[in-house]
Amino acid sequence: MRTCLFPGTFDPITLGHTDIINRGLDLFDRLVVGIGTNSSKTPMFALEERIAWIREIYKEDPRVEVAVYQGLTINFCKEIGANFILRGIRYVSDFEYEKAIADVNRTIAPEIETIFLTTTPQYSSVASTLVRDIYRHGGDVEPFLHKVVLEGLKKHKL
Amino acid sequence: MRTCLFPGTFDPITLGHTDIINRGLDLFDRLVVGIGTNSSKTPMFALEERIAWIREIYKEDPRVEVAVYQGLTINFCKEIGANFILRGIRYVSDFEYEKAIADVNRTIAPEIETIFLTTTPQYSSVASTLVRDIYRHGGDVEPFLHKVVLEGLKKHKL
Amino acid sequence: MRTCLFPGTFDPITLGHTDIINRGLDLFDRLVVGIGTNSSKTPMFALEERIAWIREIYKEDPRVEVAVYQGLTINFCKEIGANFILRGIRYVSDFEYEKAIADVNRTIAPEIETIFLTTTPQYSSVASTLVRDIYRHGGDVEPFLHKVVLEGLKKHKL
Amino acid sequence: MRTCLFPGTFDPITLGHTDIINRGLDLFDRLVVGIGTNSSKTPMFALEERIAWIREIYKEDPRVEVAVYQGLTINFCKEIGANFILRGIRYVSDFEYEKAIADVNRTIAPEIETIFLTTTPQYSSVASTLVRDIYRHGGDVEPFLHKVVLEGLKKHKL
Amino acid sequence: MRTCLFPGTFDPITLGHTDIINRGLDLFDRLVVGIGTNSSKTPMFALEERIAWIREIYKEDPRVEVAVYQGLTINFCKEIGANFILRGIRYVSDFEYEKAIADVNRTIAPEIETIFLTTTPQYSSVASTLVRDIYRHGGDVEPFLHKVVLEGLKKHKL
Amino acid sequence: MRTCLFPGTFDPITLGHTDIINRGLDLFDRLVVGIGTNSSKTPMFALEERIAWIREIYKEDPRVEVAVYQGLTINFCKEIGANFILRGIRYVSDFEYEKAIADVNRTIAPEIETIFLTTTPQYSSVASTLVRDIYRHGGDVEPFLHKVVLEGLKKHKL
Repeated sequence: MRTCLFPGTFDPITLGHTDIINRGLDLFDRLVVGIGTNSSKTPMFALEERIAWIREIYKEDPRVEVAVYQGLTINFCKEIGANFILRGIRYVSDFEYEKAIADVNRTIAPEIETIFLTTTPQYSSVASTLVRDIYRHGGDVEPFLHKVVLEGLKKHKL
Repeated sequence: MRTCLFPGTFDPITLGHTDIINRGLDLFDRLVVGIGTNSSKTPMFALEERIAWIREIYKEDPRVEVAVYQGLTINFCKEIGANFILRGIRYVSDFEYEKAIADVNRTIAPEIETIFLTTTPQYSSVASTLVRDIYRHGGDVEPFLHKVVLEGLKKHKL
Repeated sequence: MRTCLFPGTFDPITLGHTDIINRGLDLFDRLVVGIGTNSSKTPMFALEERIAWIREIYKEDPRVEVAVYQGLTINFCKEIGANFILRGIRYVSDFEYEKAIADVNRTIAPEIETIFLTTTPQYSSVASTLVRDIYRHGGDVEPFLHKVVLEGLKKHKL
Repeated sequence: MRTCLFPGTFDPITLGHTDIINRGLDLFDRLVVGIGTNSSKTPMFALEERIAWIREIYKEDPRVEVAVYQGLTINFCKEIGANFILRGIRYVSDFEYEKAIADVNRTIAPEIETIFLTTTPQYSSVASTLVRDIYRHGGDVEPFLHKVVLEGLKKHKL
Repeated sequence: MRTCLFPGTFDPITLGHTDIINRGLDLFDRLVVGIGTNSSKTPMFALEERIAWIREIYKEDPRVEVAVYQGLTINFCKEIGANFILRGIRYVSDFEYEKAIADVNRTIAPEIETIFLTTTPQYSSVASTLVRDIYRHGGDVEPFLHKVVLEGLKKHKL
Repeated sequence: MRTCLFPGTFDPITLGHTDIINRGLDLFDRLVVGIGTNSSKTPMFALEERIAWIREIYKEDPRVEVAVYQGLTINFCKEIGANFILRGIRYVSDFEYEKAIADVNRTIAPEIETIFLTTTPQYSSVASTLVRDIYRHGGDVEPFLHKVVLEGLKKHKL
């Protein structure tokens, strides 16, 4: 069985993320969306909310699971039996950073392979950072987010 | 009338900035230098001082205005009637970041176009960050700043 | 009057090109699409055909002209009274090459400014080279070309 | 069944190529090494030789096939029933070119996905072009080629 | 005498750093490893420890010295009589940043030249940041660090 | 003795080249400007002329020699006793190509080190290719070439 980890912060999950997940799904038998909680930055949305949105979006697809992890991504792969890490590349600067991490991971755990997909052009600028910035200032985030997330945002008071 | 916003932090305005403004002026009938105040970082120079320096440099040119804004750049464009955003590109990494923001802005406000000029080579390394670092440590910032700003700096005690 | 040259080979003009022209039009009073004929490579489509397609696409817009030139782009700018060169940037590698040419041009003719727009994401991969390659092998070029050009291609036998 | 095409010129196959094939194999049930023969350049090694080397290297692995094709890569994918294209990325400039082609291919044939692996650092400079250049001038190509190819080269007179 | 400064934070020194030092040594008569202490970030390892590790690694080589400095790198060069700054470049994004700093330094102190070496491929992903991240989470850092540093780490409790 | 090879085609030598040579001279005791003649392209200027220009520019500096070579750069280094190769980097795309060649050279001849300097900003766009293009079309090449070369060009009829 080919199990794959798609790691990230998903604060929130964007159409850029779902584009990569949807296209990556054909490659794997099981795809775990892994929400890393190491970051020193405080996320904008609560962990429970981020989990719920992803679960709701993929509730019809049994291949997609959501999990939360701390520590090294490579260690979490071993824990869940993932032999692949999936990453989307939007930009050249993404690519260099992702390659450095993939190289280091391969040195530590050669049995886990990192697979890259390039983002579909219309989603290639949809970074969570930019989306949060627009949202924070009351701008229109509809073109960048799944309707499940948009529904969720309505419940928030800014 | 072609109105353009040139957004930034201008902490302080450098010869790299004035190079882009001077060369962009022929394209527009009105150019608003917009000092964004969203940033979570504390600027080195007071807002009043940053405004005064830019006003002094362009006091003879009625096309150049200075304004302060908060929130989304796109919203401020609408507020001042700007249909163009002017950006200088120095480096490849600048370019990618600027392109991402321009793409996102175009999605939200297709009527506002982002225009890029490339920095003249001798100014292409004159980032405010590097200039502040040299100034903080008592180095010579004369090659990087307009004489108006250099005069202003003399009044500071480090 | 702000006159601008949009130079290229246009072999053939693509939706990437028309995207840049359409968005650049608001900046200028007159936009000359300049077909350069210096290249040592033999184009796929006859010069007359390339001219006719562009004229047909912009026949309703008096601001757009088509012209053919040989020699330095800078010299042709002076000849037609253009004070601006318009360029679209799709990729980082584009950017570096375009910046080098803009720097050299600015050294020779400082009065002519090069203006850059970034390509809309869905057109950013629509290079004439790739389109010609698909066309040559009988692939579907409809997503990449204006209907005027698509009509024109029907008259060709491959 | 997950069938994948690994397209290239393989003039000759290098340790950079085999690195990508070996690591990609776990992802697919069948991997077709496709030698494209469109190029206007004359290859250094005969097509038969290039085929034979790859067959010999993978003779023990029934998942790997070798095939020759002309025309669009996407069309060849359909012909052999491949729903994936595998590409190795060594450098930033590779990445941009590969992304452009992947975008165009996705527009024409959305059902075929391009998968990227990054080259293992020690093989990231092993381009066929550089290897041919060293070989042509009598340099030592042993660090860059599989022993099957090295054996084959001994039969050549330079 | 050719004296060179190799500046950094060395938190901790990695095999990527020693690779550059070892290969740069033939160019210079004296190489000063300069630990800059300007950074606003708190380092993971104490200054004394970082100094001791580098001294121990190069204890047999009288050409290598270790020093600590504050303020502008250029000023420290003058203080120690260094006419060269040595930098390793791993990635494109490194290169752009390093070039900007070298340009600014050359403007302030034209007599000091910055010399670049590219990192050996197998060490090109060994950034201190990534190594610290692995170490912090209990991962295996042995492939990235000199045995002197590995010995030192054993004395730490995480 | 530190001997260095500065390889290139020098068709013609530009102010970008002399900038690198002049700044590199302090690092080496002997600097050989090596004109490679492998290229399949026909140069614009005769080999004798290219040699004469470089010799004339550096006639007062006994450290600079001019030599012509065929075959691998690494082999020529061994022939002239050079343990260093000097290269100037202008752009990111230069950097990647140069790094690939340096990596391959290091694999074949680990005792020869490639040293990089970044081009001074005002010369960073002065590529021989662009200069030849301007010259061919009667443009002004004075800002890009040494006065020795400019004198030489006067003798040519275009």
